[in-house]
Amino acid sequence: MRIKVAVHGYGTIGKRVADAVKHQEDMKVIGVTKTKPDYEARLAIERGYELYAATPEKIEVFKNAGISVKGTIEDLIQEADIVVDCSPKKVGAENKAKYYEKAGIKAIFQGGEKKDVAEVSFNALANYEQAIERDYVRVVSCNTTGLVRLLYIINQNFGVNKVRATLIRRVVDPKDDKKGLVNNIMPDPITIPSHHGPDVQTVLDVDITTVAFKVPTTRMHVHSLNIELKQQAKPEDIIEALREEPRIMLVSYEDGFTSIAKIMEYAREIRTRSDLFENVIWKESIAIIDNELYLTQAIPQEAIVIPENIDAIRAMFNIASKEESMRLTNETLGIGKLYS
Amino acid sequence: MRIKVAVHGYGTIGKRVADAVKHQEDMKVIGVTKTKPDYEARLAIERGYELYAATPEKIEVFKNAGISVKGTIEDLIQEADIVVDCSPKKVGAENKAKYYEKAGIKAIFQGGEKKDVAEVSFNALANYEQAIERDYVRVVSCNTTGLVRLLYIINQNFGVNKVRATLIRRVVDPKDDKKGLVNNIMPDPITIPSHHGPDVQTVLDVDITTVAFKVPTTRMHVHSLNIELKQQAKPEDIIEALREEPRIMLVSYEDGFTSIAKIMEYAREIRTRSDLFENVIWKESIAIIDNELYLTQAIPQEAIVIPENIDAIRAMFNIASKEESMRLTNETLGIGKLYS
Amino acid sequence: MRIKVAVHGYGTIGKRVADAVKHQEDMKVIGVTKTKPDYEARLAIERGYELYAATPEKIEVFKNAGISVKGTIEDLIQEADIVVDCSPKKVGAENKAKYYEKAGIKAIFQGGEKKDVAEVSFNALANYEQAIERDYVRVVSCNTTGLVRLLYIINQNFGVNKVRATLIRRVVDPKDDKKGLVNNIMPDPITIPSHHGPDVQTVLDVDITTVAFKVPTTRMHVHSLNIELKQQAKPEDIIEALREEPRIMLVSYEDGFTSIAKIMEYAREIRTRSDLFENVIWKESIAIIDNELYLTQAIPQEAIVIPENIDAIRAMFNIASKEESMRLTNETLGIGKLYS
Amino acid sequence: MRIKVAVHGYGTIGKRVADAVKHQEDMKVIGVTKTKPDYEARLAIERGYELYAATPEKIEVFKNAGISVKGTIEDLIQEADIVVDCSPKKVGAENKAKYYEKAGIKAIFQGGEKKDVAEVSFNALANYEQAIERDYVRVVSCNTTGLVRLLYIINQNFGVNKVRATLIRRVVDPKDDKKGLVNNIMPDPITIPSHHGPDVQTVLDVDITTVAFKVPTTRMHVHSLNIELKQQAKPEDIIEALREEPRIMLVSYEDGFTSIAKIMEYAREIRTRSDLFENVIWKESIAIIDNELYLTQAIPQEAIVIPENIDAIRAMFNIASKEESMRLTNETLGIGKLYS
Repeated sequence: MRIKVAVHGYGTIGKRVADAVKHQEDMKVIGVTKTKPDYEARLAIERGYELYAATPEKIEVFKNAGISVKGTIEDLIQEADIVVDCSPKKVGAENKAKYYEKAGIKAIFQGGEKKDVAEVSFNALANYEQAIERDYVRVVSCNTTGLVRLLYIINQNFGVNKVRATLIRRVVDPKDDKKGLVNNIMPDPITIPSHHGPDVQTVLDVDITTVAFKVPTTRMHVHSLNIELKQQAKPEDIIEALREEPRIMLVSYEDGFTSIAKIMEYAREIRTRSDLFENVIWKESIAIIDNELYLTQAIPQEAIVIPENIDAIRAMFNIASKEESMRLTNETLGIGKLYS
Repeated sequence: MRIKVAVHGYGTIGKRVADAVKHQEDMKVIGVTKTKPDYEARLAIERGYELYAATPEKIEVFKNAGISVKGTIEDLIQEADIVVDCSPKKVGAENKAKYYEKAGIKAIFQGGEKKDVAEVSFNALANYEQAIERDYVRVVSCNTTGLVRLLYIINQNFGVNKVRATLIRRVVDPKDDKKGLVNNIMPDPITIPSHHGPDVQTVLDVDITTVAFKVPTTRMHVHSLNIELKQQAKPEDIIEALREEPRIMLVSYEDGFTSIAKIMEYAREIRTRSDLFENVIWKESIAIIDNELYLTQAIPQEAIVIPENIDAIRAMFNIASKEESMRLTNETLGIGKLYS
Repeated sequence: MRIKVAVHGYGTIGKRVADAVKHQEDMKVIGVTKTKPDYEARLAIERGYELYAATPEKIEVFKNAGISVKGTIEDLIQEADIVVDCSPKKVGAENKAKYYEKAGIKAIFQGGEKKDVAEVSFNALANYEQAIERDYVRVVSCNTTGLVRLLYIINQNFGVNKVRATLIRRVVDPKDDKKGLVNNIMPDPITIPSHHGPDVQTVLDVDITTVAFKVPTTRMHVHSLNIELKQQAKPEDIIEALREEPRIMLVSYEDGFTSIAKIMEYAREIRTRSDLFENVIWKESIAIIDNELYLTQAIPQEAIVIPENIDAIRAMFNIASKEESMRLTNETLGIGKLYS
Repeated sequence: MRIKVAVHGYGTIGKRVADAVKHQEDMKVIGVTKTKPDYEARLAIERGYELYAATPEKIEVFKNAGISVKGTIEDLIQEADIVVDCSPKKVGAENKAKYYEKAGIKAIFQGGEKKDVAEVSFNALANYEQAIERDYVRVVSCNTTGLVRLLYIINQNFGVNKVRATLIRRVVDPKDDKKGLVNNIMPDPITIPSHHGPDVQTVLDVDITTVAFKVPTTRMHVHSLNIELKQQAKPEDIIEALREEPRIMLVSYEDGFTSIAKIMEYAREIRTRSDLFENVIWKESIAIIDNELYLTQAIPQEAIVIPENIDAIRAMFNIASKEESMRLTNETLGIGKLYS
């Protein structure tokens, strides 16, 4: 019997979670919510998702726009086994208090929420087991997911003493037309360390300091990493270790991947919505200097957390082991069949 | 028997032409050429296209990169019935002299070439018949295609006295990382009128003056149009006329299409590579003032000419009427099933 | 005796108005207000301006930041003959009701306010006389000022039947780091005509339709203009007429002015803050087609209204004729000594 | 008697060097060269500089544009005591072979040249003495100058064990309208370390590894720095040490410096051309974690090397000690009177 998944907030993350669930055999989407009757609401219906209003007062708005909804989030969670909350930052915590606890339903939150919204902060590779049979799980943010995946692998293979990371963040997502930066670079936050390091530590026990900036681009975050290794390693060893993990995509400057523009051009060719679920690491950037590993990775902020949401569902219902779940997720989403 | 199509230049236009040909029952791709052994070359092979070197001296380069090619453009055109030349600007004319005339093969050129490269400048809607049984046809550029489609329909329905258009052009394609503008607006050309008006007139007999600018974006061109009508019309009449044509996509600000960012977000949801083959026109922008039609359209520069290339092939071999060809092309590419 | 000017809102416009007043012999700045104790507040003090808190509750904030203020806007206007309100959009109207009417003080508002905030909407060239001895005057916005100046001259010299303008607007000012567009073009408003045409008509009686877009740049607006002339004219005639007016700066592509980047580079060389008070028109863009004038002008949004604010003050106190005021303003601000 | 300075290449660096020389009492500009008769050439003349053609064949071009030149670079260096070569990258080395060695004239090169173009790579603070009485000196690039200044001070005060730096570089200067990035981030170079570390080592003996990226902005470079200290230090100690050096400008987020946009807005207020000659360091970014110093600095790429060029001239003629030269340069350029 398939797990019945409700997606609360069919936006950038929510629509990707819904489609990913659709590709699984052990779960199904029983409905999605929207706050506005816009083109994304119409697409949800075209895709065959049952549409619900995010809040009761929105029912009228949808009706006026000629879109009929099946009810509200409260109706939807009555039918569901779990809700994946993809609301904007901080709204997830409100929803928990308002709806999920009351209904006694399991819930997954995204990385915009504080860690105490859930029993465990989650990354499939790093701590799948800790989410087993939990009621509330928080899938960490895109930047944190990207850092944790990489650091987990490096730590498992070579040991990690200390990490220093500079994050060059895209200022808004491609669809945003309200906010942004123009001709600017912004330290964000201005204080060091940024919150990303502590957020990594909610999942992985590692000594890490992060510094973050925003730049005027929408496409991907880029991480400039310095990792002090416990064991000796050569660039080839690092490449070999990374190549093992399907959720890491190694690309080569030699093959024309000269910037994130080229990575996204490639993504457009191979995936719906140009979705990349992988950390993208430039082979040529991998260097070992005084037994410190340097590398540059690009983080696809819209889609990298999607496989983690799927794995979190399986863990919370304890219907698959870590290896089995990740294998199923990877297979169904086409992860690991790409370029390397 | 399928028409054997060679695609010379598997880049932004070439890869889209190849995929579009693949979707047709009356033609097939027998090979594509590349100048560099990069990720696009590898994708061409993964997609099942036979790969050829664009020039003889490149064979070695491909070999060194571990990619085997079947030969060069000269070998490829021996096997082909027609070549679709998708080379960079001006290289098409060189190829004609160097290869196509010598081999006696039909050829389609793109809008970067001067009009005298071909017997006819082409837009399916406007002058399909003129391309029938021709040897050399030039599919006009993205901006010209966008203008011609619109003006053809308006002229057919209401008559056009005069057109004034300001084109706000994306400076480079999304994959470009060598050129660009940063924090700038550039009149290009500085002199008025720009070449776009005369280029429209290679296809359509209309009085048109164009002014063009480049701005720092990669996503779409935007046209601000003023069209003096011969007959009286109301905005509803215009909408009705445009709605008839599948290659025009009407979108509404009300539905959330507040900028080209939203249009492309929608495109990502519905098409491989986020390809739009349609003129995108905002319903709310359509206004009639003193019997002059004002409207704003967005032009997807990467894909708008693709259906025209397919129709040009059919015309040149006289295997379908205009209506039949456009119907087939639209159907196979999913044109006209979209949002309206 | 000098007119005592209070500047309410020492921001992008306010700081430029203050400095311009400082250059005049018949007026002086008696104080400026700020809402925040930031670097601009400190600069105001360094420049010798008396600093006041924009609102009473801000006094504490300034004190905590170690900046002493002389009082609030209410104290300031007690001492002043006139207040130049440079508050954000719509706040000017609030200030009028709250402070200026009560104090019975003359006030100038900026173009972000609705026209009915004042007795007259103002442009020095077009309607100086209408502001004479008025209590409330509104200096129209940067785009409107740019349009009015140009159209006034063209109308005086050749007669104008009809104007069609496409405005390509910078999305935010250079100092903004909260809002913006990234890789986008936004019709704003989506409906045609935009409000700019009617705003021109608050000053000048001309048949004009405007369409407006926002693009991701901070430097200047660009206007693509089509003007139906009453009399015959050649490009040379237009150039000659424009050359007469100091507040129009003619530049040439030939001299290296290939984009607004070059214009601003030039501005950096010649003026504090790279302030341009002039409409900047490319000579090469001036074309006459069917007795319609086409041209492209760039509008420096930060500084173009500054001379108009100075002239408005003189008109409101009737201390100089239009010609005398404009001559004084131009001379003191260095207008008309530039490139041509 | 003043040192007679020729400026070869009156562009972004050259025009600033010329103006800085003009402010000194012990040197003077005897001429500047240009390759094109554009607005910058006209500005050079307006400023009172004698104009020369960069190459003989350009004389005709200037004549045709109605600009008379006094001769060519060869004529100019006959009159000069020293030439400051501000040519584009690599042209400096060509000029040395072609002109300077032949004429037996001292020359300063910029950081775009390889280090072996000169006897010494120069930064006033770090190695003034090494340039004394040299014939050929290379002033290191903007990024290197910014790194060297900071690291010299930190090393003198606290000792430096190791430096790790991520450089987020502006892709082009504000006046450029030919190249650029749009909506992109580019690792440049892709390999780690970048050349910036070794370039620092041409001036300062320090263990440093750099990683560099280009982003779509024109305004400033930003450096994210990690510095392992030899001695214990607290953030206050660092601030105190930095505050001593006039060529370092400390700014505070609290005062409204939230991004480089605000820094440049401030620069526009206080300096011609918005020139900043200083490293700009955010106080709030200064953190000590495990005795490693983290901080963020912004580097004004157009002007930071200007004071170094002036100091290099004095060193090469041995007319002032390091302290005396830096004091004079700072005083005349207004360095050190700014915000802190």
